Amino acid sequence: MMRTVHVELGERSYPIYIDSGLLPKAAAYLIKHGMSMKSPHLIVTDDKVAPYHLETLRTSLEQAGFKTVVSIVKSGEGSKSLQVFEEVMTSAIQGGLDRSSSVIALGGGVVGDLAGFVAATYMRGIAFIQMPTTILAHDSSVGGKVAVNHPLAKNMIGAFHQPELVLYDLDTLKTLPPREVSAGLAEMVKHGLIKDQAFAYWCKEHAAELLALDQDALGYGLQRGVSIKAEVVSQDEREGGLRAILNLGHTIGHAIEAVAGYGEFLHGEAISIGMAGSALLAEALSRGEGLHAETTAMLKALNLPVVLPDHLKEDDLMAAMKHDKKFKEGTMIFVVPDSIGSVSIVKDIPEQLVRDILKQLRKGGEAHV
Amino acid sequence: MMRTVHVELGERSYPIYIDSGLLPKAAAYLIKHGMSMKSPHLIVTDDKVAPYHLETLRTSLEQAGFKTVVSIVKSGEGSKSLQVFEEVMTSAIQGGLDRSSSVIALGGGVVGDLAGFVAATYMRGIAFIQMPTTILAHDSSVGGKVAVNHPLAKNMIGAFHQPELVLYDLDTLKTLPPREVSAGLAEMVKHGLIKDQAFAYWCKEHAAELLALDQDALGYGLQRGVSIKAEVVSQDEREGGLRAILNLGHTIGHAIEAVAGYGEFLHGEAISIGMAGSALLAEALSRGEGLHAETTAMLKALNLPVVLPDHLKEDDLMAAMKHDKKFKEGTMIFVVPDSIGSVSIVKDIPEQLVRDILKQLRKGGEAHV
Ligand SMILES: NC(=O)c1ccc[n+]([C@@H]2O[C@H](COP(=O)([O-])OP(=O)(O)OC[C@H]3O[C@@H](n4cnc5c(N)ncnc54)[C@H](O)[C@@H]3O)[C@@H](O)[C@H]2O)c1
Ligand SMILES: NC(=O)c1ccc[n+]([C@@H]2O[C@H](COP(=O)([O-])OP(=O)(O)OC[C@H]3O[C@@H](n4cnc5c(N)ncnc54)[C@H](O)[C@@H]3O)[C@@H](O)[C@H]2O)c1
Ligand SMILES: [Zn+2]
Ligand SMILES: [Zn+2]
Repeated sequence: MMRTVHVELGERSYPIYIDSGLLPKAAAYLIKHGMSMKSPHLIVTDDKVAPYHLETLRTSLEQAGFKTVVSIVKSGEGSKSLQVFEEVMTSAIQGGLDRSSSVIALGGGVVGDLAGFVAATYMRGIAFIQMPTTILAHDSSVGGKVAVNHPLAKNMIGAFHQPELVLYDLDTLKTLPPREVSAGLAEMVKHGLIKDQAFAYWCKEHAAELLALDQDALGYGLQRGVSIKAEVVSQDEREGGLRAILNLGHTIGHAIEAVAGYGEFLHGEAISIGMAGSALLAEALSRGEGLHAETTAMLKALNLPVVLPDHLKEDDLMAAMKHDKKFKEGTMIFVVPDSIGSVSIVKDIPEQLVRDILKQLRKGGEAHV
Repeated sequence: MMRTVHVELGERSYPIYIDSGLLPKAAAYLIKHGMSMKSPHLIVTDDKVAPYHLETLRTSLEQAGFKTVVSIVKSGEGSKSLQVFEEVMTSAIQGGLDRSSSVIALGGGVVGDLAGFVAATYMRGIAFIQMPTTILAHDSSVGGKVAVNHPLAKNMIGAFHQPELVLYDLDTLKTLPPREVSAGLAEMVKHGLIKDQAFAYWCKEHAAELLALDQDALGYGLQRGVSIKAEVVSQDEREGGLRAILNLGHTIGHAIEAVAGYGEFLHGEAISIGMAGSALLAEALSRGEGLHAETTAMLKALNLPVVLPDHLKEDDLMAAMKHDKKFKEGTMIFVVPDSIGSVSIVKDIPEQLVRDILKQLRKGGEAHV
C-alpha cells in the first residue's frame, strides 16, 4: 500500500513515497520528477548497503535509460568527513555530473547527510534524491539538514538542501540488523512523544510488529513519524525556534554519545536514555506524574535502553552538555514533556537539578519515587 | 565621498559601501547591521593583506567591543582548497563561533570565495561580510557565489550565500601591485562592454586616473562596475540565463588560464585577451565593424594584454574550451558583442571559426582585416 507524505515548504516542497517494492521501480519516479536522461546521476551508498540493494536500484535506472555513476563509502559515521566528501566529489566530477544531474543517497542517515552535502555544494547545488534504508533515516529524510562532521564537532559543516523526492522502500529494511531497527524506532516514538499521544501509544501497542518489520505497521509508523516531523519543519524550515522540540532526549543523548565515544551507543539508544531522563526531569519539575514509567514502558517495548550506565561519569556528561551550547551561566535549556504527546522548551534549569536527574537515571529512575 | 550600491535580492538584499577610510570605522557598520557583540567574529585574510590592513580592522572592532578571531591563509589561488577550508573551519570552532557570529573576508577574490564558503556552511550557514581589498573583488562581491576548487576543476564546490554587507575601503587598494590593479580593471571595463557604452568609454578616458588609483575615478568606476553586475544578478540570482553575459571573454580566458597553468596569467589578463577574441568573433560574424580596434584600445589603455602568446597551442586551448562544457557536438556557445556596451549569447559557433579567431588573436587581430 503506497503512502505519500507531502513535506510543505513552498517552492521547496517534496513528496516522500513509502511502500515496499519501490527500488525496482525507482526509474519511474525519477522520470515522474523530471530527472534528465542525458546527465549522469551519482548513487552514493555504503559498503554494507551496496551488496544488498545497489544492483536493484542501478538496474532499474540503467534499463530505463538513465546514466549512473556510483560512489561506495565505508559504512559508519567516519564517512561523514571532509575527506570522504572530497572523494565523493571526485567521483561526481570524473563521472561528468552537470547541473541537470542528481545525487541519490541509498543508505541510512550517514549516506543521506554526506550525499546531501555533496548535492548542496556540487557546482553550488544540484538535485538531491533520498532512498533511505534505515528506520532512523525517516528522521533525516525530512528537514533538508545535510552535513559532515569536523574532527572537533559533529554536523558542523553543512547546509539546508531539500530533496526533490524521497523513495522509502520498506523491503530494504529487511536486511537491517535488529539493534539498528530498535534505534530507528526510538526516533519514531520520539515523534509521538513530542506531538501525538495516540501515535506514541500506538508505537507501544504495535512494538512487536514494528520490531518484526511487519509491512503494514512499519509503513504506518514511518508515515506518521515523517508527517509529524514535516509539520514541525514546515513551520520552521531554518531552525528558528519550534524545531527545537525535535531535540527531545537529545541533550542527554548527545552527551552520552560523546562521552562513551561514538560507536558504543547507537544514536537511537542514546536518545532513548535521554528521553527517559527528560521524563524524570518533567516529574522533578512537577510537570507530569507517572511520565517516567509511561515513557520507559514504551521504550522498553521497543528493546531500547532506559538506564544510564555507570561507566559514563557525571562530570564528563555535564562537561559534554555544556559544550552543547544549551548552557548559559549555570543553567540549561531542555525539551521537557508536559504529558505523553506534548513538550515544552524550558529554560533556566539549574545545573544541580540536571546532576540529580543523571543520578536517578543511573538507577533506572527508582530514586525519584 | 560615500557611494552606496544596493544589491536587490528580496530578503537577501544588501548594501555595498564604497569610500576611503572605511576600515578604521568598520565597527560602526557592523553595529548598524546588527552584528552581535556577544558572539565572536572570524576575520579571514591572507598573508599579503594581513601586514597592511588586518590591524586597522581588528582595532576598530575590538575597541568597539566586538570579539574577533583571525585566520590567516597563504596568498594565492592555492588557498581555495578543501584543506585550507578545513583549517579555517577549525579556527571557527576553536574560536567558539555560534549562529550569531559572522565570517569577515578581508582580502581579494580568493579570500572572499573561501571565507564565503565557510560562512555558507559553518553550522549550516552564518552571516558573511566582505571587505574587498582588490579591484577584481568588486566582481566577486556581487552575486553571492562562494566556492573552493577541487583538484580536478575550479570553483566546483560551493554555494550561493549573499553577504550582509560589503565594505569597500579604497585606501586598501593603495598597497595592491600594479599588475593586480590592471587585472582588476579588466573586469570593470567588461561591465561596461556588456551593458553600458558610456561607462566603457569612461574607463578608457580615465585609464590614467584609474591606474593611479585616483580616489574619485576609482570610487566611481567601482560603483558603476558593481551596479551593472548587481542589475544582472538581481534578474538572475541562481544563474538561469541572463547571468551568462557576465562571461564575456571568459571562455577563451579560462582556456588561457588552464593551458598556461594557473599563475602565468592573472585572471583579468586572461579575460582581456578573451575579450579581444570575442570582438574578433563579432567581426567575423559581421555583428559590428571596428569592434576589435575599439575594444583593444580600451584594454591597452589599462595596460592589459590583447594578444594570444605563441606558446599556448591551439589544440590545447580548444581542448580546454571543450572541457568548459560550452561545447556541443562540434559547435560552441559564446558571449559576442553587438556593439560597445551590448552583447548577445550566440550558439552554434562552428569549432573551425573559433580556431580561426585564435589564429588572428595571436597576431593581435591583424589577419582579420
Ligand atoms: N539530517 C538529519 O536531519 C538527521 C537526523 C537524524 C540523524 N541524522 C544523522 O544520521 C546518522 C545516523 O543514521 P543511521 O542510523 O541511519 O546511520 P547509518 O547510515 O550509519 O546506518 C546504520 C548502519 O546500518 C547499515 N545499514 C543501513 N541500511 C542498511 C540496510 N538496509 N541493511 C543492512 N545494513 C544497513 C549502515 O551501513 C550502518 O552500518 C547520523 O550521522 C546522524 O547525525 C541526520
Ligand atoms: N565569487 C565570484 O563571483 C568571483 C568573481 C570573480 C572572481 N572570483 C575569484 O576571485 C579570485 C581572484 O580574485 P583576486 O584577483 O582578488 O585574487 P586574490 O585574492 O588572490 O588577490 C590577488 C593578489 O593580491 C594580493 N592582495 C590582495 N589585496 C591586496 C592589497 N590590498 N594589497 C596588497 N596585496 C593584495 C593577494 O594576496 C594576492 O596575491 C579567483 O579565485 C576567482 O575565482 C570570484
Ligand atoms: Zn536524533
Ligand atoms: Zn572573471
